[in-house]
Amino acid sequence: MTTMTRRQVLAGGAALLLPRGLRAEELVPVYAEIEKRHIESLDRLRRWVKQPTIAAENRGMAEGNALLIALLREAGFQRAERVPTDGHPGVFATHDAGARKTVGLYFMYDVKQVKPEEWSSPPWEARLVNVPGLGKALMGRGAVNQKGPEASFLAALHAIRGAGRKLPVNFVLVAEGEEEIGSPHFHQIVGRPEIREALSRTSGVFMPSATQGLDGEVTIALGAKGVVELELIADGEKWGRGPKKDIHSGNRARVDSPAFHLVQALATLVTKDGDPAIDGFADAARALDPDQLAMIDETLRRSKEATQKEALGVQRWAHDVDFRQSLIDLCSRPTVNIQGLVGGYTGPGGMTILPHRAVAKMDLRLVPDMTRDGAVAALKMHLAKRGFADLEVKVTGGYDPTQTPAGSAFIDAQKRAYSRSRVEAQLWPRTAGSYPGFVFTGDPLRLPAGHFGLGHGLRAHAPDEYYLIESTNPKVEGMDGAVRSFVDYLYELAS
Amino acid sequence: MTTMTRRQVLAGGAALLLPRGLRAEELVPVYAEIEKRHIESLDRLRRWVKQPTIAAENRGMAEGNALLIALLREAGFQRAERVPTDGHPGVFATHDAGARKTVGLYFMYDVKQVKPEEWSSPPWEARLVNVPGLGKALMGRGAVNQKGPEASFLAALHAIRGAGRKLPVNFVLVAEGEEEIGSPHFHQIVGRPEIREALSRTSGVFMPSATQGLDGEVTIALGAKGVVELELIADGEKWGRGPKKDIHSGNRARVDSPAFHLVQALATLVTKDGDPAIDGFADAARALDPDQLAMIDETLRRSKEATQKEALGVQRWAHDVDFRQSLIDLCSRPTVNIQGLVGGYTGPGGMTILPHRAVAKMDLRLVPDMTRDGAVAALKMHLAKRGFADLEVKVTGGYDPTQTPAGSAFIDAQKRAYSRSRVEAQLWPRTAGSYPGFVFTGDPLRLPAGHFGLGHGLRAHAPDEYYLIESTNPKVEGMDGAVRSFVDYLYELAS
Repeated sequence: MTTMTRRQVLAGGAALLLPRGLRAEELVPVYAEIEKRHIESLDRLRRWVKQPTIAAENRGMAEGNALLIALLREAGFQRAERVPTDGHPGVFATHDAGARKTVGLYFMYDVKQVKPEEWSSPPWEARLVNVPGLGKALMGRGAVNQKGPEASFLAALHAIRGAGRKLPVNFVLVAEGEEEIGSPHFHQIVGRPEIREALSRTSGVFMPSATQGLDGEVTIALGAKGVVELELIADGEKWGRGPKKDIHSGNRARVDSPAFHLVQALATLVTKDGDPAIDGFADAARALDPDQLAMIDETLRRSKEATQKEALGVQRWAHDVDFRQSLIDLCSRPTVNIQGLVGGYTGPGGMTILPHRAVAKMDLRLVPDMTRDGAVAALKMHLAKRGFADLEVKVTGGYDPTQTPAGSAFIDAQKRAYSRSRVEAQLWPRTAGSYPGFVFTGDPLRLPAGHFGLGHGLRAHAPDEYYLIESTNPKVEGMDGAVRSFVDYLYELAS
Repeated sequence: MTTMTRRQVLAGGAALLLPRGLRAEELVPVYAEIEKRHIESLDRLRRWVKQPTIAAENRGMAEGNALLIALLREAGFQRAERVPTDGHPGVFATHDAGARKTVGLYFMYDVKQVKPEEWSSPPWEARLVNVPGLGKALMGRGAVNQKGPEASFLAALHAIRGAGRKLPVNFVLVAEGEEEIGSPHFHQIVGRPEIREALSRTSGVFMPSATQGLDGEVTIALGAKGVVELELIADGEKWGRGPKKDIHSGNRARVDSPAFHLVQALATLVTKDGDPAIDGFADAARALDPDQLAMIDETLRRSKEATQKEALGVQRWAHDVDFRQSLIDLCSRPTVNIQGLVGGYTGPGGMTILPHRAVAKMDLRLVPDMTRDGAVAALKMHLAKRGFADLEVKVTGGYDPTQTPAGSAFIDAQKRAYSRSRVEAQLWPRTAGSYPGFVFTGDPLRLPAGHFGLGHGLRAHAPDEYYLIESTNPKVEGMDGAVRSFVDYLYELAS
């Protein structure tokens, strides 16, 4: 929404866009309260980003869990408590507003690792920086993934209450602190009888998100790929060949190399062109259906290939396909990826050793109806069949794909809420990234689930991650616009 | 030499073993001086080890160069000076004793990298530690490779001078500070007209070494494999495929993977069994000749397979060959080795990125008549032919194989010197490690070259490297015995 249209709404000029049965004057004071509380909302986000919460490094996790609980209580949740798991703890929280409907929320409080030397603004200082063509943004790890959008959601609750309004819906919230390491214990949280029962009373589950691209466009992803995160480990001792410790590389003439053993195994996992070649891995993969292809064609009309290539730093798509096919591939192809290689000597220059151990950090992305367990089993079988049974497949996280029907009321409410800000949201079959929505969309809950929120940020998982606070770009919402979108969505969900 | 036989020598009871034309009473005061100067010699070595000199990390190199020059001057070299190169500087030194013969010396002053946390005694503290079954050893990086033996050699010069004797030979010394990174600039030192001319007047070149194994046995290596140290680098930008920077791994569905590109290239470099498969790489490799095989059979009679497997932490030799064949392989096989793999995310856990770059640190070992340049050319041609022309082959060091004839007077003097300590040295065709002896044995100098020295140490390139100082094992010499062996060798070379 542009500044101008926002004023129109505040003046009651956009009554046409109000949720069914809601009078304009009900929302005007809430919108005013959002602007009044801008500094308070920004301070809340800064406080959150300044608390590192890196699950992979076990950094700040206890503090981060306690902070989220405090933020939820401050926002009006009557109940908000730590949920222990075999890994980092989650959070379960409820907000009973006496409303007719109950909505599920999925939060994460962990963030990706950082290399501070790669940042132009220190990742834990949450400074406001100027982003050319966009305005002022908060820069820091977790700014957009996911503390910024989550803080904007909490700001929406503060604004509704601050304006003296009753919340239009009740909430059941589950949060985890291991999203960035593949949600290895999220099922332990959602699987608790009390939590599962509470979620079963919701009409769907969403995660606050900053969905606007640089052109302001919004995409509603109806699903996400599943993922397996794993380490493939070659070790001389386990192999029974090669050395048990690093030895002088002169011995290579009569001692086998675990590093080459790993390389040879890795080389069997993809075709010459880099596509998955794990036996049986993709047998259950479904192609896109005509409705999904139509969504891609609609997106194609609005997207620029050059912009996407530029953003990714890519000269050619895999297989040298055209833009349309690249989008189809993005939605529909399972993948086998190397995240990192680490073995033997990794410092500057060389070191004449024959390493006893080498590791490939990998992720496999899955599409319906592939499953996490099926993918792991296929990988192990594939390796064993080729003489690599000794390689350790250390699964560190992952989950099944998730999918929500395009026609659900939950998605319709999203479309209506976006259109209140004159944003026509585009449906998208499935993101190529992953999130553990399957715990909501799969058995036994079978709820619609997805992401929602106006606002913009970039560089999740990368240096200089930011979340736009004060927009100077009429197409893209800043923080207050994001907060307002949550208010709108809650009223749409209630209607 | 045991304590008992040492006493016999000091008492003149081993006159039979004296160099031709040398009277026993000439050496008795020198041997006495060695023992008298034990603490001084040990302090010299400790001072040297305490100075880190890691070429790969550019750590302490200027200081290390200056320290070697100081040590040489203290030992009587009239001339000792820094020789600049395009990398770390070398040293050129001469000692004119007015003797009839001149001997060449090859020193190195750099050492391998360390991971201090893996050491039981800090690598730069040069502490004396007890080694069960052996005695007191100096532990530290460079202790045996190569500062310990070199310090013992210098102690021999101090002892001869301290005993009021004239040196039996003159010296021409060349030293480098880049041995551990593949001697990339050593040819610049030896290639200087003045230095080459000086070396051409020598009867051969040797490097002080601690050649005794745990059983006291000594092997005279007649050669060493050549080596190429290199990095094989896949980079999305250079490839023209894949990303130019690390991107979210969800994009793997439509973006190629430089890491897999590297893996696929690496997999072509070896056979299924791990042997070199680079086209043309080993075309010039010569098999061992009957004399060399006889040396191996002689060694076989003295060696225990179980001891070697235990020392290396190896359960099976490559190809499941027997011990004899493993020794033949060690001497005769060229190798393709991965020293290290490093690409993308290498920290704890995982990180969902598609890395833009991946590197394999490698070494290739060469046997006569393979050459460094030939091996690099073969590798590049091999890669280009298979669609990997974009991979960067970054050669960081290396040199041709080196070989000295078994029958040279230089080697005969070594045998005689060892036999003075009642050690029957075993000839060995070629070490599987590498050293840049080719600059001496190849064109234009064509000198005999090798290593010499009694004494013992272990764990070169590994944690807890040590050099034996005070031996409690009658079969193995401590520092004083090593010093004496150098005295003996110099007199043998003069005779």
